[in-house]
Amino acid sequence: MLPFNKPYLPSFDKYKRYLKTAFETAWLTNDGPLVKELTYRLESYLGTENLLLVANGTMALQVAYKIFGLKCNAVTTPFTFIATSSSLQWQGITPVFADVDPNSYNLNPASVSMKLNAETSAIVPVHVYGNPCDVDGFAVLAKKKNLKLIYDASHAFGIKLKKQTILSYGDASTISFHATKLFHSVEGGAVIFKRTEDFIRAKSMINFGIADISSGNNKHFGGQNPSIRELGINAKMSEFHAAMGLAILDDIDLVLSHRIDLFIEYQNQLLNYFKFPLWHPEASYNGSFIPITFETEVQTKLVLDGLAKKGIGVKRYFYPSLNTLDMFQQSSLSCPNSEYLANNTLCLPLYWGMKKKDVLSVCNLIKKLIS
Amino acid sequence: MLPFNKPYLPSFDKYKRYLKTAFETAWLTNDGPLVKELTYRLESYLGTENLLLVANGTMALQVAYKIFGLKCNAVTTPFTFIATSSSLQWQGITPVFADVDPNSYNLNPASVSMKLNAETSAIVPVHVYGNPCDVDGFAVLAKKKNLKLIYDASHAFGIKLKKQTILSYGDASTISFHATKLFHSVEGGAVIFKRTEDFIRAKSMINFGIADISSGNNKHFGGQNPSIRELGINAKMSEFHAAMGLAILDDIDLVLSHRIDLFIEYQNQLLNYFKFPLWHPEASYNGSFIPITFETEVQTKLVLDGLAKKGIGVKRYFYPSLNTLDMFQQSSLSCPNSEYLANNTLCLPLYWGMKKKDVLSVCNLIKKLIS
Repeated sequence: MLPFNKPYLPSFDKYKRYLKTAFETAWLTNDGPLVKELTYRLESYLGTENLLLVANGTMALQVAYKIFGLKCNAVTTPFTFIATSSSLQWQGITPVFADVDPNSYNLNPASVSMKLNAETSAIVPVHVYGNPCDVDGFAVLAKKKNLKLIYDASHAFGIKLKKQTILSYGDASTISFHATKLFHSVEGGAVIFKRTEDFIRAKSMINFGIADISSGNNKHFGGQNPSIRELGINAKMSEFHAAMGLAILDDIDLVLSHRIDLFIEYQNQLLNYFKFPLWHPEASYNGSFIPITFETEVQTKLVLDGLAKKGIGVKRYFYPSLNTLDMFQQSSLSCPNSEYLANNTLCLPLYWGMKKKDVLSVCNLIKKLIS
Repeated sequence: MLPFNKPYLPSFDKYKRYLKTAFETAWLTNDGPLVKELTYRLESYLGTENLLLVANGTMALQVAYKIFGLKCNAVTTPFTFIATSSSLQWQGITPVFADVDPNSYNLNPASVSMKLNAETSAIVPVHVYGNPCDVDGFAVLAKKKNLKLIYDASHAFGIKLKKQTILSYGDASTISFHATKLFHSVEGGAVIFKRTEDFIRAKSMINFGIADISSGNNKHFGGQNPSIRELGINAKMSEFHAAMGLAILDDIDLVLSHRIDLFIEYQNQLLNYFKFPLWHPEASYNGSFIPITFETEVQTKLVLDGLAKKGIGVKRYFYPSLNTLDMFQQSSLSCPNSEYLANNTLCLPLYWGMKKKDVLSVCNLIKKLIS
């Protein structure tokens, strides 16, 4: 029995040491000391600035879309988790799906180019599984067409491209800190803005548009309406969630290196047999997922069922290709690469505390199943 | 020195006892055991059903608006906190402000009636300060005009009307459990649906539209796309926040009776001198706020400044009347009752642990200031 994933948990004592601040000061949310500390430490660890913590990764996308005034439609990838697209649709922006590159599994600038129209306001690529997109290609395209470029970097914690954080590309990048992520804050996320003026507006936006949430004055007060200058919402991260982020950040190098070890072990065992996403040659790994792609859907289902029968957590991920969902009303538009990958890709167990011998067992079972 | 408000905090030990479950099971979010327990206990305590816990009170409104397919415009009150209106605007629904009743301070069905047009999809009244609206009047109007009726009951925890919970009116009621509320879960909120089918759809909506989040299967898995039937978002309450709700619910009768005592003491001291919202004669109190209204803005500011100088937490609340904010682009539409109340109403300190002698000091100082 191996789970697909397990949230990383620091010791209860370590978590309590951080949380105690919230109980002592009775400052439970609204840009408190723990949120501030986590912001600084994450900026320092990741090598970025203008990082805004928010309630969850989906809210991070929603806030980014609103800050940049997205409207009408945005071109995005069908090969990812639904939140990237549903958060567009939630705010009245139609997600238009372009196809992915069959090697990197990432949205392809050339495919995006063909889907642009006069109503397109943005491109929203995803660094799928943490593998960096063609950031140069997207930068050229966005500039040429005067489009906003927002990266969903939810899988890309700690990923560096040419030794720089992947979070510094585009007008903004968003990231998820959900419990299932390698770094998490129970529920949480962040938007990383290229420009400080966007960051400042967004900081007010996540607290109902009330200016200056960091003055400390609204600790017990909630906001008053007078200082409201533009549209806002509640997308604040609480101190209770920030405390978890801080406790895990203490251990993050260990978590990352363990996951990368498992990731490499999987690749060593299976690279000669199956297809993996072609990793960007100048990028680091983070072991957030271990996806493998089979040649046929029959083979995929054989392995899916075979592993499941042995109690091994495995899932089709990401499945199905989002362009095929009725809710997006684009089911007639085909994205053949994404549909092929969605139908034939499984993600295997990978989590803190998993043993290398477990990786071997899973790999041996897969080889046996398809032999 | 008296603060305006202070979050109620249970003992750290009590909070830890609830939270331990999350650490033991590693089930940190996604409809876990603590969220389930809080749901059942709140439904039982409040005397309601179809209660859906969500990430915060603003998300509660957003989810309700989406479930009922609100579009074009909704008529709402300008005399409240901004979230009721900004969450409409965030989702592309124009808030149209109707005036309030000068006695109850609540949205007035007759005023609403005059603002309805062919594009109106809903009425969104607020039980301001916890004082129940004219629920019968709104029920008749909504039925006659075939409009959705969504109550923002954010201030109305524990309020009963004719011995029944106020949360059972309209197609849905929403409530905030933000740290500043008398009952809170750090950040949190709930939607209470009249119809079970709406509740079931909403339960899936707050987890990206993935059906059946309560099966337990997605504890460590996150969702897969295949079971997605309609638009969703992430509006989940975490176990860490639910644990706070549970710890406070243990003490809630004490909290409520203390706040009601303070509320009544304020009224006894000041009722002969100032105007208070006329409370619904068949409703209970909850002591969530103690608002008083002065005759002139000069008097209001005199008391505001005089109390602030003595370190007494006081604020103009709610100020300004939302119809006067530029962001809503309706500044030319006047709501004279709301504007009068916004300009002349102050809320006074009221929180767990405040003493009756503190109430007396505040009241004496106010009387002195205006004499």
